[in-house]
Amino acid sequence: MISLKETRLKEVKAVKIGKNMSVNELVSGLGDCAFGAGRLATAVEIYETMLKAETTKFLGISGALVPAGMRNIIAQMIRERYVDVVVTTGANLVHDIIEALGDHHYKIGEVEVGPGADKSVDDVLLREQGMDRIYDMVVPEEAFARLEAFLRGVFEKLDSKSRDKGHTIRELTKAIGENLSDRDSILRSAVDSEVPIFCPAIADSMIGLHAWIYKQTCPLKVDAFDDMKELIEIFCEAPCTGAIILGGGVPKNFIFQTALIAPSREQGQEGFDYAIQITTDTPENGGLSGATLEEAKSWGKIGAKAKAVTVYCDATIALPIIMAAVRARRR
Amino acid sequence: MISLKETRLKEVKAVKIGKNMSVNELVSGLGDCAFGAGRLATAVEIYETMLKAETTKFLGISGALVPAGMRNIIAQMIRERYVDVVVTTGANLVHDIIEALGDHHYKIGEVEVGPGADKSVDDVLLREQGMDRIYDMVVPEEAFARLEAFLRGVFEKLDSKSRDKGHTIRELTKAIGENLSDRDSILRSAVDSEVPIFCPAIADSMIGLHAWIYKQTCPLKVDAFDDMKELIEIFCEAPCTGAIILGGGVPKNFIFQTALIAPSREQGQEGFDYAIQITTDTPENGGLSGATLEEAKSWGKIGAKAKAVTVYCDATIALPIIMAAVRARRR
Amino acid sequence: MISLKETRLKEVKAVKIGKNMSVNELVSGLGDCAFGAGRLATAVEIYETMLKAETTKFLGISGALVPAGMRNIIAQMIRERYVDVVVTTGANLVHDIIEALGDHHYKIGEVEVGPGADKSVDDVLLREQGMDRIYDMVVPEEAFARLEAFLRGVFEKLDSKSRDKGHTIRELTKAIGENLSDRDSILRSAVDSEVPIFCPAIADSMIGLHAWIYKQTCPLKVDAFDDMKELIEIFCEAPCTGAIILGGGVPKNFIFQTALIAPSREQGQEGFDYAIQITTDTPENGGLSGATLEEAKSWGKIGAKAKAVTVYCDATIALPIIMAAVRARRR
Amino acid sequence: MISLKETRLKEVKAVKIGKNMSVNELVSGLGDCAFGAGRLATAVEIYETMLKAETTKFLGISGALVPAGMRNIIAQMIRERYVDVVVTTGANLVHDIIEALGDHHYKIGEVEVGPGADKSVDDVLLREQGMDRIYDMVVPEEAFARLEAFLRGVFEKLDSKSRDKGHTIRELTKAIGENLSDRDSILRSAVDSEVPIFCPAIADSMIGLHAWIYKQTCPLKVDAFDDMKELIEIFCEAPCTGAIILGGGVPKNFIFQTALIAPSREQGQEGFDYAIQITTDTPENGGLSGATLEEAKSWGKIGAKAKAVTVYCDATIALPIIMAAVRARRR
Repeated sequence: MISLKETRLKEVKAVKIGKNMSVNELVSGLGDCAFGAGRLATAVEIYETMLKAETTKFLGISGALVPAGMRNIIAQMIRERYVDVVVTTGANLVHDIIEALGDHHYKIGEVEVGPGADKSVDDVLLREQGMDRIYDMVVPEEAFARLEAFLRGVFEKLDSKSRDKGHTIRELTKAIGENLSDRDSILRSAVDSEVPIFCPAIADSMIGLHAWIYKQTCPLKVDAFDDMKELIEIFCEAPCTGAIILGGGVPKNFIFQTALIAPSREQGQEGFDYAIQITTDTPENGGLSGATLEEAKSWGKIGAKAKAVTVYCDATIALPIIMAAVRARRR
Repeated sequence: MISLKETRLKEVKAVKIGKNMSVNELVSGLGDCAFGAGRLATAVEIYETMLKAETTKFLGISGALVPAGMRNIIAQMIRERYVDVVVTTGANLVHDIIEALGDHHYKIGEVEVGPGADKSVDDVLLREQGMDRIYDMVVPEEAFARLEAFLRGVFEKLDSKSRDKGHTIRELTKAIGENLSDRDSILRSAVDSEVPIFCPAIADSMIGLHAWIYKQTCPLKVDAFDDMKELIEIFCEAPCTGAIILGGGVPKNFIFQTALIAPSREQGQEGFDYAIQITTDTPENGGLSGATLEEAKSWGKIGAKAKAVTVYCDATIALPIIMAAVRARRR
Repeated sequence: MISLKETRLKEVKAVKIGKNMSVNELVSGLGDCAFGAGRLATAVEIYETMLKAETTKFLGISGALVPAGMRNIIAQMIRERYVDVVVTTGANLVHDIIEALGDHHYKIGEVEVGPGADKSVDDVLLREQGMDRIYDMVVPEEAFARLEAFLRGVFEKLDSKSRDKGHTIRELTKAIGENLSDRDSILRSAVDSEVPIFCPAIADSMIGLHAWIYKQTCPLKVDAFDDMKELIEIFCEAPCTGAIILGGGVPKNFIFQTALIAPSREQGQEGFDYAIQITTDTPENGGLSGATLEEAKSWGKIGAKAKAVTVYCDATIALPIIMAAVRARRR
Repeated sequence: MISLKETRLKEVKAVKIGKNMSVNELVSGLGDCAFGAGRLATAVEIYETMLKAETTKFLGISGALVPAGMRNIIAQMIRERYVDVVVTTGANLVHDIIEALGDHHYKIGEVEVGPGADKSVDDVLLREQGMDRIYDMVVPEEAFARLEAFLRGVFEKLDSKSRDKGHTIRELTKAIGENLSDRDSILRSAVDSEVPIFCPAIADSMIGLHAWIYKQTCPLKVDAFDDMKELIEIFCEAPCTGAIILGGGVPKNFIFQTALIAPSREQGQEGFDYAIQITTDTPENGGLSGATLEEAKSWGKIGAKAKAVTVYCDATIALPIIMAAVRARRR
């Protein structure tokens, strides 16, 4: 029996706070810490390695990250090619469009949000005021009216261009991006940078609702399954693959299931080579969102020798730190 | 200012454990408790009210509930019309088919599952043994081979019946159910009981993968958006509506967004009339899965005067208790 | 390599809901399920085994279980000797006394508690109304006035009896119990059943506050460390030991650290023989409250061959179910 | 009815990642984001305000922060007077002493820790190797032998100095600090900076165990309640008070209950003026650890007009960021 001590142990060294530290210096300091701190530092190291290795990087986005203020970071990740493929929930695209069309999201004061936090945060009252709430933030309903008009225009163009032919969801997200001029937009950035955006559950969003309304009177054919072709091809052609998963849900599974169908890229090698997962969900309820990356190895979704780490943290905290550190390291 | 005490307070009365209590007696006893106990009892009361009120009941299912052993309960809820519409993740349908085809899921021993829990739960080893893990349970890979053959047969029948016409996802789930003979199957029970099963993110599942493989050589047209029509019609025709949400995700949002597009059913009345949510996710990360039902009121998804409760609990614990109590009360 | 399948796997069998099922029948049905359902059933099996084996059973209580309505169950566990030793937070004792003195806790209406849940649950307003809130429940401040007078009486008696001699905390909890006449009281039940109640962090409670106020004018000597003697003796004399941990915190660690100091009871045998943990905390933050029972084996707190299970669940839900099932099985 | 929009809303502005950003710049950018990001920025703003206002700052520490690598930050907070009073669990002191005596904590490789994560993280094997595990980290048992010898020395000195007189726990923590020479030690830093360290549940730690062993043969009198005097005096004399709560537990409650007994410092003013809470626990289980700071207002623990924020985050991530940003702002 080989002693655990000799082979695998690394001393915990407490981090010190310096004068006006850079994010990168701080993250380096966390590298010898345990728990979330150590994992955050490991995530940055894995990302750095991924970038050096010419990895095709798949980004999964779920949770209301765009309304919470992560829109620029994600657009920047696309423009600067920190990611090469995006799989997202529909809601994040909806809120990206809302911002691109000049509408905004608003924080609810400076107050603690919690049971009985503040008597004026009354959801029935918000309803009367035309404010839709997402935790400690609201979006005015009038933004959705502009969204509807915009989407209708996109559907019409798409329809006139290609009468009989159907579309993939990825073509639809591209068409939306082409009609947005805001360079900070995720959808626009993806078009400019030729990064495909997949959204398998697009029906489950305002885009889906308006697509359906449009279809009541005009033709619009979008196939439920056709996106897989492009996604699988990208995976198979990549010499090396990585996944950055923000928050679980459909995007996490859709990215990982790509690896199930792809023929092993090399002899004895299957699954993603790198994986970073940032989530507040935990494995104990058995659901996929909180499942460990180790579990994914039993399925062949992640390679047996993959470098992988889960950071159990609100992505609105962990993502900016990781990206600030990774950007500082990249050159 | 009216005193809180006079108007809204109800004494907490501690529950007592009787001799060989029935689940219903226990839940009644929890009705005067606070925290999760009280909420569980409230969920049963709301369900009971819902059943008396001729409510059209929408069930949302996410999380690996079928592999964990909730399959019979869900099938029973459908057969006995405790629910009238189902919206689910694809994975739960996949595992329902696997069981219907005679394959099984297996628990990993009696051991604690946790960091370093048991050295033989090694995911790389499981991979070699052809065992795909879901938390403390595995499914043998050979089950997926049978699944593929079965699905191919379903796709062929569907294809031959309706060459040019496309299908909705709900028609696809119905076709699958029609080809299963296991009466304990969720999909089969839904066909028998005329309960529609919607699965907006079906591409994100083994059904999606195999549909896509089939499509490489044969025609199969499934539209991404067409399901909304039937769902919205059901909502609009219902005199009274209720939602039972197990675990968040796409099913939760897809059910609630139905209420956004439906014209108010009565003057001044909009959104669901009843809602029960069972989740282990919490509101603090801002995502929709853990969002409170109050938040849904600001969107008009839930009515201002709706009876609604969230039970923060593993659904594999809360659902059997709720159903055992509700069944005992129904007559 | 022995196949995992042959040696350790057990088929998942879906639970069925029968007519007016007893809690015990339901729990038995959950025994072949996975996730929380399976763990709950395992907890009942371990408890049953523990009772048959003449185990000395240590109960750890943290979280506001008494105010939430778990008081009778805990008192009953003491009276019927489902537990032999109790380690608790001070708060649970405070709320037990409050009920024993005739005061009550109150639920805040039937409303959803969450961000912006209900505008009248305003904590500043509650303060003005003299209502102290614990999540979805309040306790009137006037109850604390009666508590103070009662505790003063206890301290005086204790003081007059034993001028110079100091007391252990356990003697203090016993003295409190002796002065309560309510047979449903945890403290009173413990006196009647000769079950010692330890409360290592008693200073961190209203009992601590009032003890300190009393000490400003009168002598009252309570030693911080002396309780360990009795606790360790109980552990060492027991042929077999079990821990039921509700919610982590100081009680969890205090119970387990007993095993660290006790000389191994038999050759090669150390740590608790049985352990059941019910918690909503998870291991990912590294804290002891959510730590797995496996981790405790590395310390020798739990025996290498112990039967142990963690149920990740609100204790106000899991405890009543477990006790109803265990009671039905015991005879 | 005043419109919510006019009075309390603030536009969400997405954060941008600059070149080699400082932590302070990043946190400033998060200030216009929602969810955890916004709360983290608010925590830094509140801390900054607290420091300008000559606030007496109480730090509560629970969770295994010292073993995880937060020791230097906490020692630095004490030395540079970012905090004026510390209330902690015993375990954090134990691990501080272990490091001060030259022993170390070790990370377990670079692997994912989770169910079945790595077959060599076997807790029974760790037990044989003399390694005690704390999540993804171990401490060698031999460190505890040195701890015992050291503590015995401290107890002897304390005993010889003050035969008959008893000690407070705070005097005990001071005596320990005086016997440590490591300037990075929390206990030593506290002595040097005259910051009192309270540890109400000290019996629940290795210090408690060894104190009790010592007491079997030698006198050592430590009172369970006497610390409150100093703590309350500090609170009452402070013109302005703030609490920084890392992780709940006894330290959180012990700090807040101080406010219950203190006579209102000014007319109409009671409770803490500032509060920052960093926790991974959430309010839904009803326990105090995850309770909102709003709830504390109903008790008078936090002032009605206090500035308060909870950051739901692993403290090993949030604390270093907050301290790096606060330090950069302080001058």
